[in-house]
Amino acid sequence: MINKLTERIQRLEAPIVVGLDPMLNYIPEHIIKDAYSSMGENLSGAAEAIWQYNKCIIDAIYDLVPAVKPQIAMYEQFGIEGMKTYVKTLEYAKSKGLIVIGDVKRGDIGSTSAAYATGHLGKVNIGGKQFRGFDEDFITVNPYLGSDGILPFIDVCKQENKGLFILVKTSNPSSGEFQDQLINNRPLYEHVGKKVAEWGELFMGHEYSYIGAVVGATYPEVGKVLRELMPKTFILVPGYGAQGGKAEDLKHYFNDDGLGAIVNSSRGIIAAYKLPKYEAYGETGYADASRQAVLDMREDLKKAWSR
Amino acid sequence: MINKLTERIQRLEAPIVVGLDPMLNYIPEHIIKDAYSSMGENLSGAAEAIWQYNKCIIDAIYDLVPAVKPQIAMYEQFGIEGMKTYVKTLEYAKSKGLIVIGDVKRGDIGSTSAAYATGHLGKVNIGGKQFRGFDEDFITVNPYLGSDGILPFIDVCKQENKGLFILVKTSNPSSGEFQDQLINNRPLYEHVGKKVAEWGELFMGHEYSYIGAVVGATYPEVGKVLRELMPKTFILVPGYGAQGGKAEDLKHYFNDDGLGAIVNSSRGIIAAYKLPKYEAYGETGYADASRQAVLDMREDLKKAWSR
Repeated sequence: MINKLTERIQRLEAPIVVGLDPMLNYIPEHIIKDAYSSMGENLSGAAEAIWQYNKCIIDAIYDLVPAVKPQIAMYEQFGIEGMKTYVKTLEYAKSKGLIVIGDVKRGDIGSTSAAYATGHLGKVNIGGKQFRGFDEDFITVNPYLGSDGILPFIDVCKQENKGLFILVKTSNPSSGEFQDQLINNRPLYEHVGKKVAEWGELFMGHEYSYIGAVVGATYPEVGKVLRELMPKTFILVPGYGAQGGKAEDLKHYFNDDGLGAIVNSSRGIIAAYKLPKYEAYGETGYADASRQAVLDMREDLKKAWSR
Repeated sequence: MINKLTERIQRLEAPIVVGLDPMLNYIPEHIIKDAYSSMGENLSGAAEAIWQYNKCIIDAIYDLVPAVKPQIAMYEQFGIEGMKTYVKTLEYAKSKGLIVIGDVKRGDIGSTSAAYATGHLGKVNIGGKQFRGFDEDFITVNPYLGSDGILPFIDVCKQENKGLFILVKTSNPSSGEFQDQLINNRPLYEHVGKKVAEWGELFMGHEYSYIGAVVGATYPEVGKVLRELMPKTFILVPGYGAQGGKAEDLKHYFNDDGLGAIVNSSRGIIAAYKLPKYEAYGETGYADASRQAVLDMREDLKKAWSR
């Protein structure tokens, strides 16, 4: 799957993942109205609105980008009905040839991590048969519990040819409270990065490991250090655009081969029609606005990766 | 909710939470058979078996313990059908007067943490009305992303009179890889513990904060240090029993008032009938075996908290 991801990035010249993190207030009025009138003004109606919204965005961008990243929290907030939309969204994205990175940030230990890995990446045995729960291609995971928490995920990745992105340095302002604390004169995120590189050796693709890292766009100097520390680790980069990360700052997240990083944009693409730059598209043209925002992002990111 | 938890612990003389972490191989054959014949040998059948198994365990223990802790990973591995059983389990437990601690270990930043908090503890606005997604009383959360990740959860706790248990030191062998690293001569878990005590001041109950901590039973010397560092923090203690933690070792997790900690046991209770000690109960007496295991644990824990 990491090989498929690098191939698609090269072919499309787009190290871009579109974050499918819908909020109800992003969704145009006509979609909300239709969904509430068919399903009711309740959890089912909200979940239906999100599904219709996602579907049109996927239709508008699937030929431009290698991957989408649904943020499961945005679905989980609507309970079971939201989770159904999460599943429909990932199945539809895959049917369009997109790679799906489930932004689930799960993490536990032993048999519990194994259960998360089974549910999101693997197959569960029932009687003599095997079934899939959620079935993403990659998921994000949290490293705080150490190897006991990570290795059960890697075992399932190996069986399924799937991958992980492990949190190393997150994009938020307070990420430094713990991640930047110095341990033997090096910040915690470097220790975590080193460990991610070691875990990565357990499951290598052609050039990059199936075990990637999350490093926020908002700390470019950190990106440079971690790129060198984890040369074969693919980096998932949140924080571009809305959170303030700029393409110029992302040069060092990429290797000399122009690969090694994939940049996420969520609100800046899926709610592009709400930005002054794209307001001419209007509410009914929201998916076209998303497409144009991807094209603009693709152009902008060339500052970061093309040599 | 933290006041209700301390009251129930005192009344029942049981600082015990029963971990509802079902695995298919814990479930007696007759339950599996009935579930598969009514729902099919598939995800629905497995979810039904888990639901029937949980229900009888809850019926057998609800008058003895203050709380249960379903581990969501064990449900999530069966996809949507598993999540439905998670919801049914927590609704049923609450209908029996139990406090429900959702062991979800979620954690993200900003609006994403807010979405998790809304889904698990709060209410989501749809049109003019409010709806609940999962509706636990407490959940566990991961601190790696810092205050930006935690404060949105605390905001919702305040609105709902609900609480958190934040991971500080986990019970697994490799928890030390990051958590024990020294920062200014003190391990990371102490820095996290100090922060949890600070966050705790933002939302205090009568004696204890609504914002608790997770500290594993397997590192008793650590429990002692953290107990002193976080005097008003309630500690959720995993790792008793199956993972090797003993009651004698847990003295220092409790304050002089005999409160301040609640000890989890999962397998040792819900699959007690598989242990040599309780094998006379047999498969059909599995719930009675669970009840006896709770009574024995209550007695055993007196070594830790009674003065």
